[in-house]
Amino acid sequence: MAITQARTMPGVLELLPLDQVAFQSMLDAVRRNFERFGFLPIETPVMEFSSLLLTKEGGESERQVYFVQSTGSMEQGEKPELALRFDLTVPLARYVAEHEHDLTFPFRRYQIQRVYRGERAQRGRFREFYQCDIDVVGKDSLSVRFDAELPAVIYNVFRDLAIGAFTIQINNRKLMCGWLEGLGLADSERQGAVLREIDKLDKRGADAVRETLTNDTFGVAADVVHKLLDFVAFRSTSLAHAYAKLDSLGSGSEALEQGRAELKEVLGLIKAFGVPESHFALNLSIARGLDYYTGTVYETILNDHPQIGSICSGGRYENLASHYTKSRLPGVGISIGATRLFWQLREAGLLRGGRSTVQVLVAQMDDNELPRYLELATELRTAGINTEAVIEPGKLAKQFKYADRAGIRFVLVLGPDEIAKGVVTVKDLRKQDQFEVTRAQLAETLRVEIEQAAAMHRA
Amino acid sequence: MAITQARTMPGVLELLPLDQVAFQSMLDAVRRNFERFGFLPIETPVMEFSSLLLTKEGGESERQVYFVQSTGSMEQGEKPELALRFDLTVPLARYVAEHEHDLTFPFRRYQIQRVYRGERAQRGRFREFYQCDIDVVGKDSLSVRFDAELPAVIYNVFRDLAIGAFTIQINNRKLMCGWLEGLGLADSERQGAVLREIDKLDKRGADAVRETLTNDTFGVAADVVHKLLDFVAFRSTSLAHAYAKLDSLGSGSEALEQGRAELKEVLGLIKAFGVPESHFALNLSIARGLDYYTGTVYETILNDHPQIGSICSGGRYENLASHYTKSRLPGVGISIGATRLFWQLREAGLLRGGRSTVQVLVAQMDDNELPRYLELATELRTAGINTEAVIEPGKLAKQFKYADRAGIRFVLVLGPDEIAKGVVTVKDLRKQDQFEVTRAQLAETLRVEIEQAAAMHRA
Repeated sequence: MAITQARTMPGVLELLPLDQVAFQSMLDAVRRNFERFGFLPIETPVMEFSSLLLTKEGGESERQVYFVQSTGSMEQGEKPELALRFDLTVPLARYVAEHEHDLTFPFRRYQIQRVYRGERAQRGRFREFYQCDIDVVGKDSLSVRFDAELPAVIYNVFRDLAIGAFTIQINNRKLMCGWLEGLGLADSERQGAVLREIDKLDKRGADAVRETLTNDTFGVAADVVHKLLDFVAFRSTSLAHAYAKLDSLGSGSEALEQGRAELKEVLGLIKAFGVPESHFALNLSIARGLDYYTGTVYETILNDHPQIGSICSGGRYENLASHYTKSRLPGVGISIGATRLFWQLREAGLLRGGRSTVQVLVAQMDDNELPRYLELATELRTAGINTEAVIEPGKLAKQFKYADRAGIRFVLVLGPDEIAKGVVTVKDLRKQDQFEVTRAQLAETLRVEIEQAAAMHRA
Repeated sequence: MAITQARTMPGVLELLPLDQVAFQSMLDAVRRNFERFGFLPIETPVMEFSSLLLTKEGGESERQVYFVQSTGSMEQGEKPELALRFDLTVPLARYVAEHEHDLTFPFRRYQIQRVYRGERAQRGRFREFYQCDIDVVGKDSLSVRFDAELPAVIYNVFRDLAIGAFTIQINNRKLMCGWLEGLGLADSERQGAVLREIDKLDKRGADAVRETLTNDTFGVAADVVHKLLDFVAFRSTSLAHAYAKLDSLGSGSEALEQGRAELKEVLGLIKAFGVPESHFALNLSIARGLDYYTGTVYETILNDHPQIGSICSGGRYENLASHYTKSRLPGVGISIGATRLFWQLREAGLLRGGRSTVQVLVAQMDDNELPRYLELATELRTAGINTEAVIEPGKLAKQFKYADRAGIRFVLVLGPDEIAKGVVTVKDLRKQDQFEVTRAQLAETLRVEIEQAAAMHRA
C-alpha cells in the first residue's frame, strides 16, 4: 500500500504526551483560578458565519482568516459562508447578543478554546493556538471596579503557575488621550495613531518611534515628541509612587481627569483585591494598539524575561457587540495566549516537564498473579490514585525503565515474598528511594506522598 | 450602524453557562477516569492535510468533510489542502506514525476534542461534537488482555456520571465470522455485508433484516437466516451464562475457535479488572458496521433507556496506521460521543443541571465596606472555594435573587451586626437554611459542606 507521509500542517504546536501533561496542567491552573473568582464557562463553535465574523472594520483580520466549506457547498461552487474564529472576543460578542435575554448582567464569563489565524509560518508564531479569556460584560453600564478585579485573577493564575516574578502593568487610554490633548494633539484619530506608535516602543525602540512621529506624515513637533517619550517612560515602583505621578500631572482636559480618576480607583482597589504592590505597576507606555480599548489597559511581563513580551493583555471597552445588538454592552477583558506562553516558557527552560499524570505503575512479577495485580490497581484507583497496571508479561528491569522514561513516580512490586508478608514494595523513582508498606496502609501512604509533592509545587 | 443577526450555524450545541457547567463536569469525569487508568493525553490540530485525512477508502466520510482554506490560498484559486478532522482515529493514526520513535508502546492515549461532520442538519445530529477516545496501540502485537481493560475504564466513567444502570455489551467479530462460516457463508466480503445488516437489527427490526438477507441480492437461504437471527438474539445474564453459550457452539473453524478463546479470556478478565457481572454481557448481535474492527467489539446501553442506543462503542483493530507507516500497529479503542450523550441525557431529563461552579456569593450590604467584602472573598478563594464578590452596589434582595438564579449555593452576609460580633451570616439557598459562623471557622465550615455535597453526588 502507498504510504502517505504523516505530518501536521506548519504553524501548530502538537505535543508529545508528557509535554501535553505539562500544558494541560497549565490550562487547569488557569481554569481553576478563573473559577475561583466566580467566572462562568462558555464554549462557542469553532466556526462562525463569515458575514458575522468579518463585520468588524479592518482588512487586517480578514486576510488571516481560514474559510470553511463542506463538500456539498463546494461542489455547488458556492462561496464559503463559514470561517474559523480568529479570537474569542467576536464569538463572545455574538454569544452575548444572541443569548442576551438568558444571561444575567454583569456577565462574568471565561472561555478557554483554540483560535485560528492564517499567519505566515514563522518560529514562535502559531496558526492554531489556545486563548484563555475572561470578560465582565455589563448592560448599559459597568463599574470601573471590575477593572481592578481582573488583575487579581491574573495575579492568582501566574502565582499558581510558579513561572517566576511578574508585574501586571496598567495604564488608561483616557488619561493618555487627555494628556496628548494637553500637548496640542486634540484630534482623536491622530491620538489613536500616536498611541499605536507608542505601543511599538518595546519592539522598535525610542529612536525609531521618534523618527516616525516627527516625520512628514505624522508631523509632531520634536519638543512634543521629546515630552511624550519622557512621559511614557514612567513606571511606578509602588502605589504611592503611582499616585504621586498622577497627581503631579496638574489639571487637564475632561479626558485626563476621567482617566486619572479611573486609574487611581483601579490601582487602589487592586490592592484591596489581594494583589501585593510588588506585582502591579502603573506603566505609561502601555497603549495597546487597538482603538477598541477605551479606558484601562493591561499588559503582564515576566520580570526576568522581558524579551518574552506581554504574557497577558487586555482592557476596557465601551461596547462589546454594537454589530449584533442595539443594547449597550460595556466590558473589560483580559486574555492569556496559552500556546505561545507554553512554547516560550519551554524555550526559556522555565517549565518543569517530564512528569506524567500516571502516579503509580503496578509491576508484573509473575504472569499468573495478574488478577492480584489488577485488584491492587483497582484499590488504588478507588483511592483516587492514577494507576497503570502492567498487563503484558515482561522483564522487571524493562518495566522500571518504562516507568522512568514515562515520568511515573512510583513502581509497586508484589512478588512472592511480599505476598507472603502481606506487604508491597514501593520504589520511589523521584526520590530514588524504596520502602515496604502493608497492603492496608498502601493507598493512604501513597496519597500523602502525592499530596505533599503537589503542595510543595504550589508553594 | 447596521445590525447583523447574531446566530450560530445550524447543527452545533452552544450552551448557556449553567448547562456548560454540567457539560464540563461530564467531560471532567471522563477525563478523571481516563487518567485514573493511566491513559495519557494528546491533542491534535483541528485541521489535517486533506490528502492525509482522506486516504481511507470510502467516499462516505469524504462527502461529509469540511474543507479549510486561508484567504491567501483562496485568492490564488487553489484547491483546499486542509480539512477539519471528522473523528479522532485518523488523527491518532497520523500522530502515532509521525511520532512513532518518541512514543513508548503499548501507547495508552486519551483524547477529548471536537470533531466535524457536514451532516444534514437534523434534531440530535451534530456537525460539531466532542469525542472522548481511549486507545491502546501496540507495536507488532498487543495482548487481548487490553480488550478487557477498556470496559473497566468505561464502567468507572459511567458509574461516576451517575446516569443510571448501564450494560457494556461485548462480542467478537472473529467468532461471528467463524460462525457464519459454519453456516456456509465463507466469503469474507459477504460475511462483512451480513454483519452490517445484523448491526442494523435495533433500528430496522428483525423482519426487515430477514427480508434484506433473503432477497435476491443477498440470497441467504431462509433457514440460514432463521438460525442466524436466533443466534444473534442471545444476551448473557451472567459470566457463567456467557461461557455456557460459547461452549455450546461446538467445535468450528479456526476463526470461531480464536474468537471464542478471545471472548472467554476478555469476559473473564473484565471481572478481574473490577467490573461487576451486572454491568457487562455477551451480546451476539453487536457487530459494529465497520470492517475496520477485527476482534472484540463493544457497545454500551443505558438499561432503562435502550432507545438512546449505544453511548460508548469501539473495538479491536488489526493495524492502526497502514496508510502512514509500514510498522504494524494493532490496537483497541473505545469512544464516547459526549455532545450527543449530553443532549440525550438532557432530553431524557437525566441531568442534574442548574448548579454553578460558583459556590459562594459575598453579598454587599454597605458600599463603604467593599474592602472588607473583598478581603473575605480572598480568604475563601485561598481556602479553595469558588467565590464571587458583589462589586457594584445594589439591593440585598436583588443579590439573593441573582444567586438563586445563578445556581450559587451560599450567600454570605456581613452587616454591621455581624462585623460587631465577628461572625458571618451564611444563607444556604439549597437547604433553605441560615446560620451564623465565626470568621475564623467560616472557610472550614463551607469547605466541609461543599465536600459533603460533592461526595453525596458521587455516591
